[in-house]
Amino acid sequence: MASRHVINASVSPKGSLETLSQREVQQLSEAGSGSIYALFRQCALAILNTGAHSDNAKTILEAYQDFEVRIHQQDRGVRLELINAPADAFVDGEMIASTREMLFSALRDIVYSESELESLRIDLSTSQGITDYVFHLLRNARTLRPGVEPKMVVCWGGHSISSEEYKYTKKVGHELGLRSLDICTGCGPGVMKGPMKGATIAHAKQRIIGGRYLGLTEPGIIAAEAPNPIVNELVILPDIEKRLEAFVRVGHGVIIFPGGAGTAEEFLYLLGILMHPDNKDLPFPVILTGPRSATPYLEQLHAFISATLGEAAQQHYQIIVDDPAEVARQMAQGLKNVKQFRRERNDAFHFNWLLKIEEGFQRPFDPTHANMASLNLSRDLPPHELAANLRRAFSGIVAGNVKDKGIRLIEQYGPYEIHGDTAVMQPLDRLLQAFVEQHRMKLPGGAPYEPCYRVVT
Amino acid sequence: MASRHVINASVSPKGSLETLSQREVQQLSEAGSGSIYALFRQCALAILNTGAHSDNAKTILEAYQDFEVRIHQQDRGVRLELINAPADAFVDGEMIASTREMLFSALRDIVYSESELESLRIDLSTSQGITDYVFHLLRNARTLRPGVEPKMVVCWGGHSISSEEYKYTKKVGHELGLRSLDICTGCGPGVMKGPMKGATIAHAKQRIIGGRYLGLTEPGIIAAEAPNPIVNELVILPDIEKRLEAFVRVGHGVIIFPGGAGTAEEFLYLLGILMHPDNKDLPFPVILTGPRSATPYLEQLHAFISATLGEAAQQHYQIIVDDPAEVARQMAQGLKNVKQFRRERNDAFHFNWLLKIEEGFQRPFDPTHANMASLNLSRDLPPHELAANLRRAFSGIVAGNVKDKGIRLIEQYGPYEIHGDTAVMQPLDRLLQAFVEQHRMKLPGGAPYEPCYRVVT
Amino acid sequence: MASRHVINASVSPKGSLETLSQREVQQLSEAGSGSIYALFRQCALAILNTGAHSDNAKTILEAYQDFEVRIHQQDRGVRLELINAPADAFVDGEMIASTREMLFSALRDIVYSESELESLRIDLSTSQGITDYVFHLLRNARTLRPGVEPKMVVCWGGHSISSEEYKYTKKVGHELGLRSLDICTGCGPGVMKGPMKGATIAHAKQRIIGGRYLGLTEPGIIAAEAPNPIVNELVILPDIEKRLEAFVRVGHGVIIFPGGAGTAEEFLYLLGILMHPDNKDLPFPVILTGPRSATPYLEQLHAFISATLGEAAQQHYQIIVDDPAEVARQMAQGLKNVKQFRRERNDAFHFNWLLKIEEGFQRPFDPTHANMASLNLSRDLPPHELAANLRRAFSGIVAGNVKDKGIRLIEQYGPYEIHGDTAVMQPLDRLLQAFVEQHRMKLPGGAPYEPCYRVVT
Amino acid sequence: MASRHVINASVSPKGSLETLSQREVQQLSEAGSGSIYALFRQCALAILNTGAHSDNAKTILEAYQDFEVRIHQQDRGVRLELINAPADAFVDGEMIASTREMLFSALRDIVYSESELESLRIDLSTSQGITDYVFHLLRNARTLRPGVEPKMVVCWGGHSISSEEYKYTKKVGHELGLRSLDICTGCGPGVMKGPMKGATIAHAKQRIIGGRYLGLTEPGIIAAEAPNPIVNELVILPDIEKRLEAFVRVGHGVIIFPGGAGTAEEFLYLLGILMHPDNKDLPFPVILTGPRSATPYLEQLHAFISATLGEAAQQHYQIIVDDPAEVARQMAQGLKNVKQFRRERNDAFHFNWLLKIEEGFQRPFDPTHANMASLNLSRDLPPHELAANLRRAFSGIVAGNVKDKGIRLIEQYGPYEIHGDTAVMQPLDRLLQAFVEQHRMKLPGGAPYEPCYRVVT
Repeated sequence: MASRHVINASVSPKGSLETLSQREVQQLSEAGSGSIYALFRQCALAILNTGAHSDNAKTILEAYQDFEVRIHQQDRGVRLELINAPADAFVDGEMIASTREMLFSALRDIVYSESELESLRIDLSTSQGITDYVFHLLRNARTLRPGVEPKMVVCWGGHSISSEEYKYTKKVGHELGLRSLDICTGCGPGVMKGPMKGATIAHAKQRIIGGRYLGLTEPGIIAAEAPNPIVNELVILPDIEKRLEAFVRVGHGVIIFPGGAGTAEEFLYLLGILMHPDNKDLPFPVILTGPRSATPYLEQLHAFISATLGEAAQQHYQIIVDDPAEVARQMAQGLKNVKQFRRERNDAFHFNWLLKIEEGFQRPFDPTHANMASLNLSRDLPPHELAANLRRAFSGIVAGNVKDKGIRLIEQYGPYEIHGDTAVMQPLDRLLQAFVEQHRMKLPGGAPYEPCYRVVT
Repeated sequence: MASRHVINASVSPKGSLETLSQREVQQLSEAGSGSIYALFRQCALAILNTGAHSDNAKTILEAYQDFEVRIHQQDRGVRLELINAPADAFVDGEMIASTREMLFSALRDIVYSESELESLRIDLSTSQGITDYVFHLLRNARTLRPGVEPKMVVCWGGHSISSEEYKYTKKVGHELGLRSLDICTGCGPGVMKGPMKGATIAHAKQRIIGGRYLGLTEPGIIAAEAPNPIVNELVILPDIEKRLEAFVRVGHGVIIFPGGAGTAEEFLYLLGILMHPDNKDLPFPVILTGPRSATPYLEQLHAFISATLGEAAQQHYQIIVDDPAEVARQMAQGLKNVKQFRRERNDAFHFNWLLKIEEGFQRPFDPTHANMASLNLSRDLPPHELAANLRRAFSGIVAGNVKDKGIRLIEQYGPYEIHGDTAVMQPLDRLLQAFVEQHRMKLPGGAPYEPCYRVVT
Repeated sequence: MASRHVINASVSPKGSLETLSQREVQQLSEAGSGSIYALFRQCALAILNTGAHSDNAKTILEAYQDFEVRIHQQDRGVRLELINAPADAFVDGEMIASTREMLFSALRDIVYSESELESLRIDLSTSQGITDYVFHLLRNARTLRPGVEPKMVVCWGGHSISSEEYKYTKKVGHELGLRSLDICTGCGPGVMKGPMKGATIAHAKQRIIGGRYLGLTEPGIIAAEAPNPIVNELVILPDIEKRLEAFVRVGHGVIIFPGGAGTAEEFLYLLGILMHPDNKDLPFPVILTGPRSATPYLEQLHAFISATLGEAAQQHYQIIVDDPAEVARQMAQGLKNVKQFRRERNDAFHFNWLLKIEEGFQRPFDPTHANMASLNLSRDLPPHELAANLRRAFSGIVAGNVKDKGIRLIEQYGPYEIHGDTAVMQPLDRLLQAFVEQHRMKLPGGAPYEPCYRVVT
Repeated sequence: MASRHVINASVSPKGSLETLSQREVQQLSEAGSGSIYALFRQCALAILNTGAHSDNAKTILEAYQDFEVRIHQQDRGVRLELINAPADAFVDGEMIASTREMLFSALRDIVYSESELESLRIDLSTSQGITDYVFHLLRNARTLRPGVEPKMVVCWGGHSISSEEYKYTKKVGHELGLRSLDICTGCGPGVMKGPMKGATIAHAKQRIIGGRYLGLTEPGIIAAEAPNPIVNELVILPDIEKRLEAFVRVGHGVIIFPGGAGTAEEFLYLLGILMHPDNKDLPFPVILTGPRSATPYLEQLHAFISATLGEAAQQHYQIIVDDPAEVARQMAQGLKNVKQFRRERNDAFHFNWLLKIEEGFQRPFDPTHANMASLNLSRDLPPHELAANLRRAFSGIVAGNVKDKGIRLIEQYGPYEIHGDTAVMQPLDRLLQAFVEQHRMKLPGGAPYEPCYRVVT
């Protein structure tokens, strides 16, 4: 990266309420690997790369090894001093407002989740304790707004999709926005950006001020999927499981667009939860959609669900091909049911307390070779438990593909081995191969895909 | 109170961000003496008596023994159910908006300070830890706003003053408001209300939206000094020492109007801090003022300071008699110096980190007879230490006059004995006698004042 | 006025939309008696005397003979240069925001009503044309806001009342404000200020931002009744008849407090209109009220109405003595009927198109001695016509008391003679005498009242 | 148009201040050709076709011959009843907010410009009178906002351009928006939409609320160039000359993108004005730009200017090829000069009073065959006069291409003849031919272009 442009700058939060105590400033200022500082530096660098097109966390981190960020307490609050920062985050020397906002959101979340909450009385060893933790993180980020009707639509799908698929996500976002709905995504490019962009234009047409474009991310993925600049609320959750729980507790419905292993992980997570007997009557609109050209993908995924989790699982979502307005209409209708249900049960609009999430979905899964090999992938399991284990399998594949730690494990020990019933392994193998063929599995840097797993029947 | 009017009602926070987790709702719902619930119920009752004229906490609590408040989680957030609530808080069956806001502020502060913060890593055994605690409480209440220039003027003085003195405080508040300054008081009637009322009118004239009327109180005093309805930010600190620290860290200047023992306590606290060598260069405008008729009071207080803390103490404030515009002009000038100083030192505008407060001023003082008797009140002490002990003496007198626990101690053991040098005891005795003669010492219920102390030389 | 303080200053409209064309600036700049400039200068001087206590227009005008105002076009809009302006309109050299706003409102109204509208196609020779003219003036002043429910309460009464009566108007305003109602008055002191002040505090308690304090005045009276600084919308109508029409078209209900001849004029105007057969079914809440001490006044006025316009007239208002909350409750109830009625008839909430006002009430009345002497004051007239003529009689008396032209006529030709039936003349005489005895008739400068009229039976 | 979808609906202005008098409602309600009603109906139909892709006014008008709009006065203001309205303006039966806003803007402008202003004292026979008229129209539309720094960038160019050129205009708009600049266009598709769309995204990134997308149009063109839905301020000027004057008085700089005869008309209008000796020192940034592929177009236009108006004319603009960020930087720099200049001369930021526009540019040009034939196109004329006549020639060509009246004239009498010096005629001919070859001259309906003119040397 010979032509790397860098800039030194000093930024303050504008109109923000972020204030830090001297103790907190001190904590942040302490440099050193493993510390809060390293975490914040890494997130800051990802945020400053907003809009850049690399999905290779390592590349970015290496390109800006001399990047530094220092935190100062000053008269009007906190000030960040950036050294050797990517120049693209600036316009004529001044930082873009959304980037600045996200920097301070990262600061807020990292200070809060790392420094304070861990010592709260919250008991992370229980399911209720984990949910409380997620609630506190979101509340601290001012994401929970009482008095607002259900209208937060989660959009899941790949960060690297075809131009046609990308345009389709913009159209769906546009139709959602025309119906005054808000967008929540994982906050990177691709499906995480398209719906937000479409909704921005639609909100402008509908003269909606305060449309929400909520991005939920985690430190492990933020570098690979830098927040797109439309995001106007950024929350960094501590890990993938907290992030997934945040999606389903704060979102009122989910749209699944084409994607790869990560999207499959999210879809299985969601189905596993919705199939839990306690959630039987709970309305939660889920729509699988894509443009005409994505029909094979949609069919393959649908078939995989049928083959592994059964037809009952298919009752939890509908498929709509190439019809953005219909997607938005169905979602809007589904949200009305959500509203009605929550009102009847006196559940909060802003946090889905009634949704039962089993501990199995909440506990972080560490994708070691041993853990991957010992996943129980059998059709004898209750479907929601099988879904949980399949979710873990895909989580491991994502890690092996793009996460630092996973990549290193694969380099060292070779591909993961995934064992299970033929009845599960065959469809899994077919799905993964289709992903590869459709170029939905990518490696950082764009090398030809070499699987990080071996499906063993 | 035969004609007591009560009402049952259900209220939700409007436009507020208060959201509670299920765990928090549960904690609050648990009734039983000593619990958080009892504390919240007591504060809620005081707030619902806003505008009532009794300063007798006991009377209020007894009059509404059957008052109950229940907390429910519901679709749009939290809802309070009030049973047998004072009818004066309602207009045609609907709760006055400011009262509703304050109810939810109390909920916020009590949940936060009691349930969460105590388990933070904050170390309340150190001075820095206590300051951090105060900072967190204020930040959680959204009182700390970066980017706002110094303009928060603390007004101290009696809650029960003459009509002429009350009018004077309104005029001073009006002149402060005309100069775009905000008001912070202890949030009850009298001097705690007048400046806010004057500033409200002045802010309307200056077309200022968002003028701040900040009330800082504590559970022990809120029942006796119910928040006046002008207060648009209410913060309940855990005890008098935290409250005093909040005043001087969040306020940028202080005006002292006529008052009684409580006012003297506040004044001595402030002088004790400002006289600390570390605060030598720190600008902190303090003005002692009152109408023409209050001249004897102002002179007596001034003389007492001279006799006990010496002329050096007198350098920390100026006296202005009967000139509201001049008070406001001097304060505005003083605030300019504060701004300049903080900018130079890079200190926050919203929190006075640089002000040194010795632990002696931060530690709660328990006004037992033994503690009162053993106060060291000698001119041999460094002035700021003598000020600290005099502050404790007045704190004890306030407790003996109006606080539940203090009153019971006096009933049981008779008046406190206060010992010390004649050089200190004589002026103290004179000052207290003057307070009594000027009807500045009052007992709940309005009985003739009988001293709860004996000055022993 | 030896101690007159003056100041030179330059002010711009802040956050205002007032923009002038070069032609308009030129028109305004042309000085010379009789021109628009003279009119604006006179209004500006009155506005700058806001808060001053003189009700003597002549005194003010004479005290500031060297006052000048110049209008400049500049980069950011229009700028006024003030020379020898009353210093009370400034705080530490800067003009109070409300005063500045009112200055530019005056500029807007005078430019619009004098320069442009007169040449519109509007036909001032018809009743409909006059109503259209009033509509255009109010619309240009942005007083007409669609989408707002009926809540504008007109308060009429004296500008010079007793302290007890003044406090009562504040209490009524407070109760109105607690019920989210807005206030409209003639914008001077006394009854024109009290309700606004009370409502300001109540709106603050109810956290209402954007409470309206609408002042309607006219060039002939503005100097004697300078706008009080609570007024946040000022409209200057061209004459008393347009102003009265504006009151009843833009107000949704009327409260009449104690006052003198001007108040009687307003009351008769209103009754004359409401008694018109076309207005039979139109709801229009009218409440006559005052503190206990004003009972004689209220009874006298009530008796006068009975004796002259008959009991039918008394059906159009209710009397409430010494009960501010009840006044507000009754008004709020009456406004609900207004809302219901307008919705059913599809009439605008913001302008009472359906109210029939006969040309007799719209035509300016010139109080010459001949016109006064020839007023037909006979019980044989239909009551609404008698009301119209009685209104004119009081209008003449107001002119003779306080308006420039009227005073000069009286000086030259002696008191007006008012002729009529004994059945009308006797009650009129009694009412006027009562006004004099209760000190409700005042002369500029405070000289003992010498009647400007003679009632001839 | 067999598949035409229509809808009946009733809409009210939301949050708008539009209020009409009964007289105005009556005027509008009167149907009949030639009346205000016909004009409003036509504009309404164009607005409801927002987003539709036809640029053929006639087609639209014919497709919706049974479209009707009725105006009702009701409780909360005005209500429009639409019958057989294009369904695309609605989402699930509800009108898109921006469309609704524009409908009421059209109502406002047509009522104001047609009904009221014509009878103002404004003298349309003088240059100053015409400017005053434009000022009043813009002021009434609330387009003139004092206190806002110069940042309104006019973007001119074709409504039908290549996909690459369209993307380029979005990029330039994005860069302008990142620098907090606002956009003003003729409010249709193509170059009139792209910059607004780019700026919308950029303003979202910069967290700018209240970014302005000002569309200036005229009744004769609105049907062919329906306002795009990003426009958040729509003003309908009475004719092309008023519209051009509005552009240069309200805009602070101009960017010219590729376009056809209409763009050439605008460019010549602008150069003609800037070359007037009185405007010699007046800063007015003009940038000619396009993507790499538009280089031939840019060069041709540049050469034409040189050949006809001379090199002096070329000093008034700069050419930037394929560099959106540089365009925005140069414009931002130019606006600083504008600001500085206006401040020094005390000229309004919101209206360019100092710009001299000769009557020749203000008078409507009627493109009859006689008028076209007698245009003096000689290099002997002072350049700004030649520019005026060339502007008229292009104006006639636009009319002959797309305007109702022009098309009918051409059908009847054949192509216009344009005479002049060879030195002018040759470059003109070359330019027009290049336009045809580059498909920049289009006929409604998409038929192959047949010139409506003949260049005679």
